[in-house]
Amino acid sequence: MSQRPYNFAPGPATLPQEVLEQAAAEMLDWRGTGTSVMEMSHRGKAFLSIHEQAIADLRELLAVPPNYRILFMQGGALAENAILAMNLSRGGPVDYVVTGSWSAKSQKEGRKYADVQVAASNEADGHTTIPHPSGWKLRANAAYLHLCSNETVNGVEFHELPDLKALGSDAPLVIDFSSHAASRPVDWSRVAMAYGGAQKNVGPAGLTIVIVREDLLGHALPICPSAFDYKIVADNDSMYNTPPAYAIYVSGLVFQWLKRFEYQGAHGVAGIERRNIEKAKLLYGCLDASAGFYANRVAADCRSRMNVPFYLPDERLYAPFLAGAEERGLLALKGHKSVGGLRASIYNAMPLEGVQALVAYLQDFARSHG
Amino acid sequence: MSQRPYNFAPGPATLPQEVLEQAAAEMLDWRGTGTSVMEMSHRGKAFLSIHEQAIADLRELLAVPPNYRILFMQGGALAENAILAMNLSRGGPVDYVVTGSWSAKSQKEGRKYADVQVAASNEADGHTTIPHPSGWKLRANAAYLHLCSNETVNGVEFHELPDLKALGSDAPLVIDFSSHAASRPVDWSRVAMAYGGAQKNVGPAGLTIVIVREDLLGHALPICPSAFDYKIVADNDSMYNTPPAYAIYVSGLVFQWLKRFEYQGAHGVAGIERRNIEKAKLLYGCLDASAGFYANRVAADCRSRMNVPFYLPDERLYAPFLAGAEERGLLALKGHKSVGGLRASIYNAMPLEGVQALVAYLQDFARSHG
Repeated sequence: MSQRPYNFAPGPATLPQEVLEQAAAEMLDWRGTGTSVMEMSHRGKAFLSIHEQAIADLRELLAVPPNYRILFMQGGALAENAILAMNLSRGGPVDYVVTGSWSAKSQKEGRKYADVQVAASNEADGHTTIPHPSGWKLRANAAYLHLCSNETVNGVEFHELPDLKALGSDAPLVIDFSSHAASRPVDWSRVAMAYGGAQKNVGPAGLTIVIVREDLLGHALPICPSAFDYKIVADNDSMYNTPPAYAIYVSGLVFQWLKRFEYQGAHGVAGIERRNIEKAKLLYGCLDASAGFYANRVAADCRSRMNVPFYLPDERLYAPFLAGAEERGLLALKGHKSVGGLRASIYNAMPLEGVQALVAYLQDFARSHG
Repeated sequence: MSQRPYNFAPGPATLPQEVLEQAAAEMLDWRGTGTSVMEMSHRGKAFLSIHEQAIADLRELLAVPPNYRILFMQGGALAENAILAMNLSRGGPVDYVVTGSWSAKSQKEGRKYADVQVAASNEADGHTTIPHPSGWKLRANAAYLHLCSNETVNGVEFHELPDLKALGSDAPLVIDFSSHAASRPVDWSRVAMAYGGAQKNVGPAGLTIVIVREDLLGHALPICPSAFDYKIVADNDSMYNTPPAYAIYVSGLVFQWLKRFEYQGAHGVAGIERRNIEKAKLLYGCLDASAGFYANRVAADCRSRMNVPFYLPDERLYAPFLAGAEERGLLALKGHKSVGGLRASIYNAMPLEGVQALVAYLQDFARSHG
C-alpha cells in the first residue's frame, strides 16, 4: 500500500505498521492453530504462551525487578484511579501531586476511598511547570504519594522522578505513566507502582497495565471488586476474569517490535528513548524558532517528549491549519477541548519522518500566514 | 485458505469467518482513513460512527426498548457482578437465584455490597434443573432479583424468563446473559437489566455489554468508581473512559453479520435462534441415542442450546476422545475443570456443519469404544 498518513492522535494512537501487518496476517490462523487469537480459550496453551511472552517481554524492556508483579487489567487509567485507591490506601491518608488534568482527576477519584491531600499543585500557573519536590507537603503516614509522570493534555513530563526517601518520606510512589510508558526507562528504586492505559504508547484500548511491588498486594478495602483486587489478580496471573486477550496480543507484538528496535546503536527502550529525544528536540526547536508564531507554554525543563500542545497567534488560523495538515496526511492535531489549541502526540510508534513532515508543514504554514 | 477447524471453546469462542476476514482486510486502513480502528481517537468522527452503529444494530437485533440504555463497559461478567450490585442494590436486600457456578459467583460478589438472599438454588441436584419460580422465596423489598439465564459451565438455560410481576414481586429482574446473548430474543417486559461479557456469543474478550432500564440509573453507592457508575457511563455515551474500541468494532461486525443472517426464511436473531435450536436438537439427540455411552445430566426442559456438557462411561476414554477430535479438526471439547467431562459450546458462530461433524465423530467414537 502507499504511504499511510501520520497520525498524531493522543490515544488511541498510531501503532507500528509492521505490528498491524502481522496482526492482519495472523487474523484467521495464529501459527497453524486454525483459530484467531480472538477465538482462543484464555486458558488454552496457545493463548497462555502469548500472555506469558507479553509479560516477560515487558519485564525485560522496562527492567522490572523480580519483586514487582505485572498485571493486565481493564478499565483504563480512569478506572484504575479508583482501583488503586481501593487497593493501596487502606482508607487512610494519601498524598497527590497535581500537575495537569489527569492527576487532578486521580486525586478527585481517590477522595471516594481515602483521606486525600494535594501535596503540591501547578494549577496557579496553568499546569505549565512541575513544583520542585523540596516544596511538597508530604505526610509521614501517607499510604502512598501519587503523581502523573506525563500529562497528556497539558504536555508536562517528569524528566526525573522524585526520590521520596531523600525527602524523608517512606510513602510508596505511585505513578500514572499511561502516556509515556515504555518511552524511557523507569527508575524502580523510586517507584512502587506504575499503571497506565495501553492505548497511548503500548497497544490498543481496553488493556490497563499495572506494575506493582509485591508488598503492596493484599491490602484491598473490603468493597474492592474481586476482579480488581491486586492480590486476586496477581494470584490468578491476570486470569481471574477473562483478560482482554486481543489487546494483550497486539501489545505483545508492540513489545516484540520494541525489542527489535535499534536507533543509532541503542536498542529496545534505550533506542526508542534516543529517538524520542530527537523527535521532541526537532519539534520544540521548530516551535521556538518561529519567532512567536507558535507558542508552547510549558517550562523548558518539563516539556513532554510525547505530547506537545501549542497555539497559533490568531484563532482564525486553526481551521486552515488543520485542513492543510490533513491534506498533507498529518492527522489528529487538534488540541484537547479543555485547553484548545493544537497538540502533536509523538509516541514511540511515530517515526522520525512523521515529525520531520510535521515540522516542514509548520514552517510552510508560518511562512504563508506569519 | 483451507477449511478452518471447528472450535467448540466456551469463550473466548469461535467468530464468523467473514467477520475475521473483514477485520483483517481493514486492519491497516479503515475505509480510506489511512488508520487502523485500533489507532483512532475514540472521540473522532470515524470511531464515533463505528460506536454508534454497533449500538444501533444491537438495539435493533435485540429489539431493545427506547427506555433502555446500551452501555459498553469493561471487566467481563465477573467484574460486572460487583458493578451491578454497586449500581442497583442501594445497599439493601437483593435476591439471587443460583442455578450453576456463574450465578453462585454473582451472589457471592453481591454480598460485598448488599444484603443477599438466595431465593432458590439447584445445588442439591448438582445444578441440573431450574427450580420452578412458584417456589422462589422473593422478598417484597428486594432492590432486584438476579439470575444467570444460561450457565456456561453447567449447561442449564432458562428457556422462559420468570414473570416476577405475576409472582407478586416488583423487583427488577437482572440477568447475566453472557453465554447466550443474541442467540434468541429477550423478553424486555420481564427484564430490567441484562449484562454479559462479549467473548462468548458476541465478539472478542474485553467488552462487557450492559442493557439497563433508565429508571435504574443514578442510584450508585458512593463507593462506586466513576468509570463504572451506570449514570456517568450513560451520560457520556460509554466514553467517560476510553472504550475498548477494537472489541466494539469487531462486535459491531458480528452484529452486521447477524443482521444479514438468514436461515430457513427467518432473519437476524429469529434466524439464528432457529439454527441454534436445530444444532442443539442434533447434538442432544445424538447423545441421547447413544444408549448410555454419552451422558448429559441436565433436565430435558432446561438444557442449554449453547453449552452442552457431557460425560463418557470410562475415565480412560477422555484422552483418546480428545486426541481423536483434534485430529478431525474438532477443538476445545474439554469440560470445565470444576465439573470435568466434555463440553461442546455451539454458539451463534458455530455453523450447522460443525455440529454435524461433531455428531459424526461422536457416533464413530461410540461405535469403536462402546
